[in-house]
Amino acid sequence: MFNAKLMASIAVLMMASMPVSANWEALPDVAPAPADNPTTEAKVELGKMLYMDPRFSSTGTVSCNSCHNVMEGGEDSRTFSMGVHGKTGGRNAPTVWNSAFHSVQFWDGRADLLEDQAKGPVTNPVEMGVSEIEQAMDKVRAIPGYKPYFYKAFGKDAMTVDNAAKAVAAFERTLITPNSPYDKYVKGDKKAMTAQQVRGMETFAAVGCTSCHSGAAFNGPKMPFGQGFYSKFPTFADNEYDKKYDLSADKGREEATGKAADAHMFRVATLRNITDTAPYFHNGSVNDLSVAVALMAKTQLNKDLSDAEVNDIVAFLSALTGEYPEITMPRLPATSGFSLVADK
Amino acid sequence: MFNAKLMASIAVLMMASMPVSANWEALPDVAPAPADNPTTEAKVELGKMLYMDPRFSSTGTVSCNSCHNVMEGGEDSRTFSMGVHGKTGGRNAPTVWNSAFHSVQFWDGRADLLEDQAKGPVTNPVEMGVSEIEQAMDKVRAIPGYKPYFYKAFGKDAMTVDNAAKAVAAFERTLITPNSPYDKYVKGDKKAMTAQQVRGMETFAAVGCTSCHSGAAFNGPKMPFGQGFYSKFPTFADNEYDKKYDLSADKGREEATGKAADAHMFRVATLRNITDTAPYFHNGSVNDLSVAVALMAKTQLNKDLSDAEVNDIVAFLSALTGEYPEITMPRLPATSGFSLVADK
Repeated sequence: MFNAKLMASIAVLMMASMPVSANWEALPDVAPAPADNPTTEAKVELGKMLYMDPRFSSTGTVSCNSCHNVMEGGEDSRTFSMGVHGKTGGRNAPTVWNSAFHSVQFWDGRADLLEDQAKGPVTNPVEMGVSEIEQAMDKVRAIPGYKPYFYKAFGKDAMTVDNAAKAVAAFERTLITPNSPYDKYVKGDKKAMTAQQVRGMETFAAVGCTSCHSGAAFNGPKMPFGQGFYSKFPTFADNEYDKKYDLSADKGREEATGKAADAHMFRVATLRNITDTAPYFHNGSVNDLSVAVALMAKTQLNKDLSDAEVNDIVAFLSALTGEYPEITMPRLPATSGFSLVADK
Repeated sequence: MFNAKLMASIAVLMMASMPVSANWEALPDVAPAPADNPTTEAKVELGKMLYMDPRFSSTGTVSCNSCHNVMEGGEDSRTFSMGVHGKTGGRNAPTVWNSAFHSVQFWDGRADLLEDQAKGPVTNPVEMGVSEIEQAMDKVRAIPGYKPYFYKAFGKDAMTVDNAAKAVAAFERTLITPNSPYDKYVKGDKKAMTAQQVRGMETFAAVGCTSCHSGAAFNGPKMPFGQGFYSKFPTFADNEYDKKYDLSADKGREEATGKAADAHMFRVATLRNITDTAPYFHNGSVNDLSVAVALMAKTQLNKDLSDAEVNDIVAFLSALTGEYPEITMPRLPATSGFSLVADK
């Protein structure tokens, strides 16, 4: 038994050192930004306020941070997020951490940029629940303290939906978690990962996970904004997992585009900080990272991993949890002597 | 008209300088703590984490900060707070800022200490909605990262409900907003308040507001913990306000004690940062600070204020908005590879 394991490890090591092995990349310190929205301090400051402000949701209780909580793994730990009036949607909230390294946004890639994504939840009836996005913006405009921040970030007459979205996107582009054990390791600190993590890294590549989960964010090759890197999930549906976790019920990108060719296509998710973002998958159906790893090997690669291989990969994935930057709470500009959110 | 106003101002000035005038106090830098829970850095650090953590509510969506948002005026701007599943209660959320200067907690004073108060919302079905408080604590215990923080704050085997509440209370005792224009003024900086604010301060005292709203937090005389300073609201109910704003529907402290003598008795609320805490009163029925001031004069003192007096008092009240300390977001300790909040 021991020898079999050892031999398997040696085989994996050999494969990992072959030219086909993954091109391991550390996470950049700065996220790319579109040409028309370079990241500036003023935008980030304003964007952080807007991101944390629940007052323009229909109930005054739901902010971006409610479901994409930066004090947690950039999501809410729930299967499906809970928006206004306790309503829930049908997809698991993706993490906001390192979302700037995605070339498209949402599980189905229906938004090209963080700027576009930021507007979506505002008018989603099960998220912030506002009828028209201008209604939300009217509330922002009714808060006098926001004006100077918009002015500073965008110049005069700048209190528009587009600028609000740009500010939120600029803030989100600062939500990067560098210096994980993995990053330190690939930068040369060979002690940064444990032996099991290194073994898991090699297994991860050897098994074929890197065919999709490549690149610095483990979400595929670098693509221009708006061009998504998708994969069919499940690719192999004829197994116990598909039924047990109801993976095929959601048609993925087809639901956004209406094209049969997009059926069950999903954006390849980042694996950064994955230990902090359970439960897993578009439907949040798997609440155990080990099961998620075994499931992916079976549904995407049609491979049955041994428990040892799963454990090693999970150990490696835990090395992708980076350093969350310290964030100071913004002071949300007040309305003086009245509330925008009260019943009357 | 001008002369009449001037004479009135002079009269007020004379009254204000008479021995019966209020004893104006600045806000202390440190809040009192009970003997068995001295405030320590370790407790404050842990308490901040627990205060911000939504994971032990029944849905995983409601933290202390959801309704007592320290990024806002320490409350949620809503008439009635919204807890799990969009449920709402029947009283307006009091601000957490400077709550440490209250000798009893809740509108009806049903908790002696912040330590006791902190436990209440956890099991309230319209707030965090947990059946038994030990269930919430089990979730905290299931998060490995909390253990060292409890250990540091309270020593070994310290992961108890009482210690969690003590930590939250310790954090809340740091939520103090000093250096308001009023504080600077009473400390000697005579330019810290505008002429209108000074006039309003004098009117505030002359009209009789200080008979209840006295002391550093404008919530009454300093009392020992557990001994509340209550007032009947409305004291004078035979007026338009009582009906219009349904002030008498809530029996106040009687609902907590069952004693007829406590009917319509409410803890005297702090006026600190009142511009940031609309809507007003136990039922959040008034969403205009000017109306709130006129209403109080009528229902508590049976006086009809002029618009000018109301405006001056509102100006003075705006001088009670202090400096909110900067708070860094805590990193909520993660569960690795699974979620406590997921459906399965």
